[in-house]
Amino acid sequence: MGIPEGFRTHVGVHRLRVRYADTDQMGVAYHGAYIPWIEEGRTEWMREQGRSYRSMEEEGLALAVTSVEIQYHVSARYDDWIEIETRLEKLGKASISLAYRLFRVDPEGKRGPLLASARTRLALLGPRGRPVRVEKEFFSSGN
Amino acid sequence: MGIPEGFRTHVGVHRLRVRYADTDQMGVAYHGAYIPWIEEGRTEWMREQGRSYRSMEEEGLALAVTSVEIQYHVSARYDDWIEIETRLEKLGKASISLAYRLFRVDPEGKRGPLLASARTRLALLGPRGRPVRVEKEFFSSGN
Amino acid sequence: MGIPEGFRTHVGVHRLRVRYADTDQMGVAYHGAYIPWIEEGRTEWMREQGRSYRSMEEEGLALAVTSVEIQYHVSARYDDWIEIETRLEKLGKASISLAYRLFRVDPEGKRGPLLASARTRLALLGPRGRPVRVEKEFFSSGN
Amino acid sequence: MGIPEGFRTHVGVHRLRVRYADTDQMGVAYHGAYIPWIEEGRTEWMREQGRSYRSMEEEGLALAVTSVEIQYHVSARYDDWIEIETRLEKLGKASISLAYRLFRVDPEGKRGPLLASARTRLALLGPRGRPVRVEKEFFSSGN
Repeated sequence: MGIPEGFRTHVGVHRLRVRYADTDQMGVAYHGAYIPWIEEGRTEWMREQGRSYRSMEEEGLALAVTSVEIQYHVSARYDDWIEIETRLEKLGKASISLAYRLFRVDPEGKRGPLLASARTRLALLGPRGRPVRVEKEFFSSGN
Repeated sequence: MGIPEGFRTHVGVHRLRVRYADTDQMGVAYHGAYIPWIEEGRTEWMREQGRSYRSMEEEGLALAVTSVEIQYHVSARYDDWIEIETRLEKLGKASISLAYRLFRVDPEGKRGPLLASARTRLALLGPRGRPVRVEKEFFSSGN
Repeated sequence: MGIPEGFRTHVGVHRLRVRYADTDQMGVAYHGAYIPWIEEGRTEWMREQGRSYRSMEEEGLALAVTSVEIQYHVSARYDDWIEIETRLEKLGKASISLAYRLFRVDPEGKRGPLLASARTRLALLGPRGRPVRVEKEFFSSGN
Repeated sequence: MGIPEGFRTHVGVHRLRVRYADTDQMGVAYHGAYIPWIEEGRTEWMREQGRSYRSMEEEGLALAVTSVEIQYHVSARYDDWIEIETRLEKLGKASISLAYRLFRVDPEGKRGPLLASARTRLALLGPRGRPVRVEKEFFSSGN
């Protein structure tokens, strides 16, 4: 049981590409598009810890986002490759806070400017929407 | 029982406004944005028939979209008022086909150009995802 | 010139309805859906000050979102009416910070629970993406 | 000049994963989510022909979607891998019609059921939104 060490220290790195659907008429990615992007970063970070969010839901658990903060530094553009860094920021009794950094990367994978920084707080909920303890339940089953 | 006459003949008219989130870097509304718009048209058309989709789901029924067709004629632009006309096109045993026309309207509500035409086919499903008969179930409960 | 008094004190109130497209498989509105909602609140709040964002862009100005914060308190559900309160929180030289509160309202318009609180910081940009002064430029033209 | 042979016959294959943001409260992917998916398929199919849509826009050309048709066969689910097949269906003077098939694939990449079939018609537009000839302009510049 307990929480694997990697869960506390692992930095996830995930890449995606900006879709035309993500852009707006300012000619850059719409600021709301970053929310599904950091969701992808979080999902892959979890998977790298041996925990798929899909299997978590199948076991009756859910991670509900209770807050989001995003700072936008440089605009992401259509067709850009974006690299999302995800790491644990704080581990509460029934919540997890994650921090994200989004970079532009060139086609060879070299990092360009920091585009945005973000933070999400997630509450771990059990079957009837009750808060459950991260330490006990988050890794309680395999997947 | 049976199907109210209005259900067959009523033309729903619903208005909404193009959001910045709906635009893309071509400077017009993204073609995918029209799908939630016609969904709004359909929802309000149903409500005008005394049938809210929310209450339908609470009774264990669902309308699953099985096909969508959209023809784009004139671009919708940010902040435009859009008027969506919704009408029944065909009533199957376990399906409903709806047709939509989207117009730009000026601030006084006068119709401008036809922006797009669309069609959706919806299957009526019961509790375990089985097709159920529209004539029997669609209006079987009040709301 | 100068900034109209209402701009500093006016509380905008705007209503919208949760679309099916806004929901996710948790059975509630997806947390990212709130970003276009508060955008609608902001747009209408500006319009109530005599300033349409569309005309602002036509004059070569843009409001770029530089940060977003949202706290989620109670889930919004499909077909809910949502009331968005928008007010100025802080007026910088070349930026505006707005605060939002989102409430569920019943069909008669009576307010229910506070669903979410949010904050956005917006930078006012001129023709070549340069920061411009809010006091001088924001209300410099009519619309 | 002329049109490379591959452009007429190449079948593009692109994979993506269903995001939580793509789901709705029916517990499956929202039908509108398929539009950005087939856009990804189209973009990668073009890139495989040596033509990036980003560079095409930088040259003053645009592909405007003039119609979309989607038939939904089997629901896509959260976290599913989706494989999108893209091929040229018809080459008009100033338009291109593409056909798509979307399959679920298992983690090893083996194809499961056909989830959806789609078709888009795209008009090739020049600098002032005028139709331009595909044969002459589509491949006229490198990228």
